[in-house]
Amino acid sequence: MVPTLKDDPSQAVLASHRLMLRAGLIYQVASGIYGWWPMGLRILQNVAEVIRRYHTDHGVDEFLLPTVQPADLWRKSQRFEAYGPEMLTMQDRHHRDLVYGPTAEEAVTDMMRSFARSYKDLPKVLFNIQWKFRDEIRPRFGVMRGREFLMKDAYSFDVSVDQAKKTYTQMSDLYWKIFHALGLKVLRLRADTGPIGGDLSHEFHVISHVGESQIYYDARLGDAPEQGEFYAATEELHNPQAFQNRNIVSSKSIEVGHLFFFGDKYSQPLDGKVLMPSGDLQPYMMGSYGLGISRIVGAMAELFHDDKGLRWPLDIAPYQVGVVPIHADTCAEIAQGFYHKLQNQGYGCLLDDRDKSAGEKFFDLDLLGIPFQIRLSKRLCAQECAEIYARYEGCTQIVPWDNLIPALESLIETERKRYPFV
Amino acid sequence: MVPTLKDDPSQAVLASHRLMLRAGLIYQVASGIYGWWPMGLRILQNVAEVIRRYHTDHGVDEFLLPTVQPADLWRKSQRFEAYGPEMLTMQDRHHRDLVYGPTAEEAVTDMMRSFARSYKDLPKVLFNIQWKFRDEIRPRFGVMRGREFLMKDAYSFDVSVDQAKKTYTQMSDLYWKIFHALGLKVLRLRADTGPIGGDLSHEFHVISHVGESQIYYDARLGDAPEQGEFYAATEELHNPQAFQNRNIVSSKSIEVGHLFFFGDKYSQPLDGKVLMPSGDLQPYMMGSYGLGISRIVGAMAELFHDDKGLRWPLDIAPYQVGVVPIHADTCAEIAQGFYHKLQNQGYGCLLDDRDKSAGEKFFDLDLLGIPFQIRLSKRLCAQECAEIYARYEGCTQIVPWDNLIPALESLIETERKRYPFV
Repeated sequence: MVPTLKDDPSQAVLASHRLMLRAGLIYQVASGIYGWWPMGLRILQNVAEVIRRYHTDHGVDEFLLPTVQPADLWRKSQRFEAYGPEMLTMQDRHHRDLVYGPTAEEAVTDMMRSFARSYKDLPKVLFNIQWKFRDEIRPRFGVMRGREFLMKDAYSFDVSVDQAKKTYTQMSDLYWKIFHALGLKVLRLRADTGPIGGDLSHEFHVISHVGESQIYYDARLGDAPEQGEFYAATEELHNPQAFQNRNIVSSKSIEVGHLFFFGDKYSQPLDGKVLMPSGDLQPYMMGSYGLGISRIVGAMAELFHDDKGLRWPLDIAPYQVGVVPIHADTCAEIAQGFYHKLQNQGYGCLLDDRDKSAGEKFFDLDLLGIPFQIRLSKRLCAQECAEIYARYEGCTQIVPWDNLIPALESLIETERKRYPFV
Repeated sequence: MVPTLKDDPSQAVLASHRLMLRAGLIYQVASGIYGWWPMGLRILQNVAEVIRRYHTDHGVDEFLLPTVQPADLWRKSQRFEAYGPEMLTMQDRHHRDLVYGPTAEEAVTDMMRSFARSYKDLPKVLFNIQWKFRDEIRPRFGVMRGREFLMKDAYSFDVSVDQAKKTYTQMSDLYWKIFHALGLKVLRLRADTGPIGGDLSHEFHVISHVGESQIYYDARLGDAPEQGEFYAATEELHNPQAFQNRNIVSSKSIEVGHLFFFGDKYSQPLDGKVLMPSGDLQPYMMGSYGLGISRIVGAMAELFHDDKGLRWPLDIAPYQVGVVPIHADTCAEIAQGFYHKLQNQGYGCLLDDRDKSAGEKFFDLDLLGIPFQIRLSKRLCAQECAEIYARYEGCTQIVPWDNLIPALESLIETERKRYPFV
């Protein structure tokens, strides 16, 4: 099901927003609030799945927080008033104040109290993939700055500041790996702690001329972004004075991840404490670690597109292979056969059996960013051959049916090497 | 991570609620609003995954609607006022009314307008797994009657009433298969359409003495619930007069699924129309099909437990196998080896390496409903043997390491036959 649009949607300023609407990935339900059509949802799920797998493999357990939280938790941390108009609040039928969570430091601190009673229960890191709401004054750029957005938020609990900072560094390392797996070249910058608070914070940004952030960094990081010792700061923390003689460059960028260490800022007021060997009760030292999953989809659309449409990394594309029967009367059965064979071999495979012309199908699959097409025409089927089309190479080759899977596999191997960070 | 409780939680009336809290599956964040600890989340995800797979295999595409919807959509269908105090409403910073979706007929009807323009684009069925909110006046029974709950809601779009009713029947058949796969024995009952509206509706219920519904049905359905021709009705639609001479029995029950056919109730006011061959624009004929995923988890906990704790069907249990090293000093490495071997062979496997006594581990794994344990003591390891414990049989057997996987596989086969509906 591909509800593509013929014309450019007028409300979309950015290429990513325009292409995601045209390719039928998303649908605007209200300002900054989107529905995801099947192809878009697959992309969102693929990004979430990479993030989930890396966290799980790193020993971080997945849990789930609700979207709605009681305002009382936010009153205890003094954030109910302080968070400002970006927080969506409501009252239930009994006139109790509720919050649509813009983040969840309070809720997780409270929840952790029923698990962590002793220092022996720590350290612990948990992550959660859930919808959040931030009532942006001017939502725009599609899912890049939406109001309802999908976020992975992880929370760490340690018994000492030293241990907590080690956890912070490990989470930072994990984030490098995740962005690498997503094919995103990021910079890690010293950042302001904003409404989360605390005394240590870093942001991960991708450089993009359409980004809304301004960042300052040592030019040497451009080639080797993981070199931690070089200067890199967000606008809020940039000190033009101190660095006037150095090779600092500036770019527009998109923030895609954020790390915070805030010690006992939440565990102290919310009574999140563990019994220490000394017999004292001590608040746990916490950090939080966010990745904007739906925003990352928007950022990838912005970074990875060409004049034919979207170009997703192989593991993020809604499907790796589209099977296109050009003449339905003669090729439908063969196409179905290849579709099932590829599915069974573990390829994400789409059978484009829509009642449309070959040209329209080729166009739509390119727009969607399906990396490979297997095309079957009457003439090719008579020769027991198929045409493989590689979207990113822009080239085609005709192969006998027997050789189709090895030829496809070889193209996929080449494609995997294309994104330096995948 | 298993945040089990030693004592019975005082607020829980039902066994399911009590056991889910004690086993550390859920955590109450506010009245009727729950967080899910890792083990609970796995169960929730397993139920969702069965439902997802059956829909996808049935050719129903997954999409995603946001949780928050503009009130204007609900004004168009006349439901903004009519839905009543169960609907959670709010205002954004620009004083626009928003709704936390209790269901999504309006949103999907509106979204579908950008895809379905011609009769050729139909029929179509879409499903969505998303959190919903219904502000119950008295939330209770844990996740069985929560306020924020996970729901699978599917929507069908047809060009005629006849076709729409065929789709309705197909979805009903799909629901039988899903409940069968979940090991739930359900009854299908004629039901009131309530706030969704329309002229045809069925509910699926499981019989339970703790249920909040009262249902009336032909006693012959007790053994063969899929026999559609017998009388079965919810309390609202039951006619005591007409059936006084027949063998009608009554039970308490839990509603777990609901089907609606409501024609053009939403497509008419929301302008969801397709171009017909005649050249006329005609509103599509719609149905909606709900499954309460988090409620099903609660209902399963209620139906499947014993005095040791929870008893999940194999594919729903958080893990199929728990590996328990009894003496950490001598068995830890062997236990890890088996854990990795079982993981690699596709078993959902948990390594219980907590610093707890063997008795506490056995107790917790039984409470959680892990179907099998592989126990490794110093003595057994010296003999290159392990003990397999089958929770539901309550029996143990000692097997040589070489024979562990075949022995486990054979126990799993027996277990699969235990639930008549799995």
